[in-house]
Amino acid sequence: MSLLTVGTMAFDSIETPFGGVDKVVGGACTYISWAASYFTDKINLVSIVGNDFPEKELDALKRRGVDLSGLEIKQDGKTFFWRGKYHYNMISRDTLTTDLNVLDDFNPVLPEHFKSSEFVMLGNLTPDIQDQVLNQLTSAKDSFVALDTMNFWMDIAMEKLLEVIRKVDVLIINDEEARQLSGEYSLVNAAKKIHTLGPKYLIIKKGEHGAMLFNENKVFFAPGLPLAEVKDPTGAGDTFAGGFMGYLAKTGDTSFENMKRALIYGSTMASFCVQEFGIENLKKIDLDKINERVTAFSNLVKFDIPE
Amino acid sequence: MSLLTVGTMAFDSIETPFGGVDKVVGGACTYISWAASYFTDKINLVSIVGNDFPEKELDALKRRGVDLSGLEIKQDGKTFFWRGKYHYNMISRDTLTTDLNVLDDFNPVLPEHFKSSEFVMLGNLTPDIQDQVLNQLTSAKDSFVALDTMNFWMDIAMEKLLEVIRKVDVLIINDEEARQLSGEYSLVNAAKKIHTLGPKYLIIKKGEHGAMLFNENKVFFAPGLPLAEVKDPTGAGDTFAGGFMGYLAKTGDTSFENMKRALIYGSTMASFCVQEFGIENLKKIDLDKINERVTAFSNLVKFDIPE
Repeated sequence: MSLLTVGTMAFDSIETPFGGVDKVVGGACTYISWAASYFTDKINLVSIVGNDFPEKELDALKRRGVDLSGLEIKQDGKTFFWRGKYHYNMISRDTLTTDLNVLDDFNPVLPEHFKSSEFVMLGNLTPDIQDQVLNQLTSAKDSFVALDTMNFWMDIAMEKLLEVIRKVDVLIINDEEARQLSGEYSLVNAAKKIHTLGPKYLIIKKGEHGAMLFNENKVFFAPGLPLAEVKDPTGAGDTFAGGFMGYLAKTGDTSFENMKRALIYGSTMASFCVQEFGIENLKKIDLDKINERVTAFSNLVKFDIPE
Repeated sequence: MSLLTVGTMAFDSIETPFGGVDKVVGGACTYISWAASYFTDKINLVSIVGNDFPEKELDALKRRGVDLSGLEIKQDGKTFFWRGKYHYNMISRDTLTTDLNVLDDFNPVLPEHFKSSEFVMLGNLTPDIQDQVLNQLTSAKDSFVALDTMNFWMDIAMEKLLEVIRKVDVLIINDEEARQLSGEYSLVNAAKKIHTLGPKYLIIKKGEHGAMLFNENKVFFAPGLPLAEVKDPTGAGDTFAGGFMGYLAKTGDTSFENMKRALIYGSTMASFCVQEFGIENLKKIDLDKINERVTAFSNLVKFDIPE
């Protein structure tokens, strides 16, 4: 089934304790689409770039089955640029530069054939733009919508954010954001409160510690895969979301059992992402490598208790 | 099989964001022994207390099958006392008072019938005392020994600590301690280095995020059970270790597969521990409750990937 991916496309300059890269291709929509492309070739991308975005990067996405007719290329503008530096723990980071550039004028208009996408992944953006996309879907109620957001929007646009959250099926946030949104420290209690805000499903990402899926009274936990080398956490959350929604779009199955699998596939994709800077590793992998790592996830947590 | 438990017995005054208690019974050996007592009644306790330690607490341990003939009761001394205050994250804490009292004179002498204990759990203590205990075992090579320690001893007694670590089968430390001991940030690389220091098995505790078991190239992960309420993390690590070693002593099986189960039982016991202050909850549970929670652990991580 088709997956609508909405979010930023960007240039990132990234510094971590293990190296750095300058002006590599990034952005939520880029990571989401690359990750999802290993599961479905019906990806409807909606984003905006400037005249400086490399043609060959767009060609590479096209070859992965990504439909770029929802991509606005602003000939008189420059692509969104972010520069950041990670601390030693590879979790906290300082944003050194944010040049919105064309993102300032992002006013997404969905091509007609995008409006009935069965699955929708709204990457982190202003809640206004996320809502604008939702309102263009012919039958948002029939689409299965996931939304990513961040504490920044909770700080400055909570009311609008709550309005959008009410409309989505899955909310994907990290542990600190779940605490901020709910006012609850315990993630179990946070999940209960967040369910009352609308989303039937809640995914709480905990970085290297894994991710949790909540639905009614059910909970599932996907660990982080222990890795010898983590080079760059940038885009890991988006890659996770892309893998998760890509797997759901591939299978067309939104049962809790299948969502557990989707969580494992999302975690698997994220584990590849962090091993190289930018989207480098996401370009190099294949289904065999993905399935091999899913098996590693399975072995990591498998135990049996004799009766 | 028999389990030797060595460590402090104490009074703790604990303040957390969710309440506080004054001068409740605590100490590593107390938590370890209580947790292990749900799996084996052959517990050989070695510790020291003052004349102020409540008789009824000792009686309660005896009723759990704990042999107290290795407990020194110093008639002219007071029991070790610790006062601490936890921060909002329930991980970091400030130590406000440490009165060593009788612990200053702790010079453990093993009763003859303790010296051939098949399993040994060395709770966090000075490496000197841990070594003193190991040297009294008739055949330390035949005992299966686990050791808990902390960053404090790495700071002030690293050489002696390394000497003791070399002799044990399982080292149980937290993630920060593993990083400090190995000089490696990645826990996978930390585990590799720590294996070269002696222990064939390494358990890295990550608090609410779970615990990992490393052996050669194998790794197993036991998640933390998501809890609605955490009142007091004091003793969680000791309780984990007690559950882990208690299960091994019960089964007498130190295969990797069985150690995975032991890790789940250890995590289960720790999850009970944190729900009340001190050892209160450890006194209230029973095997049915433990097994019910082990099932919850199993469900938390269970998924199947169709071929």
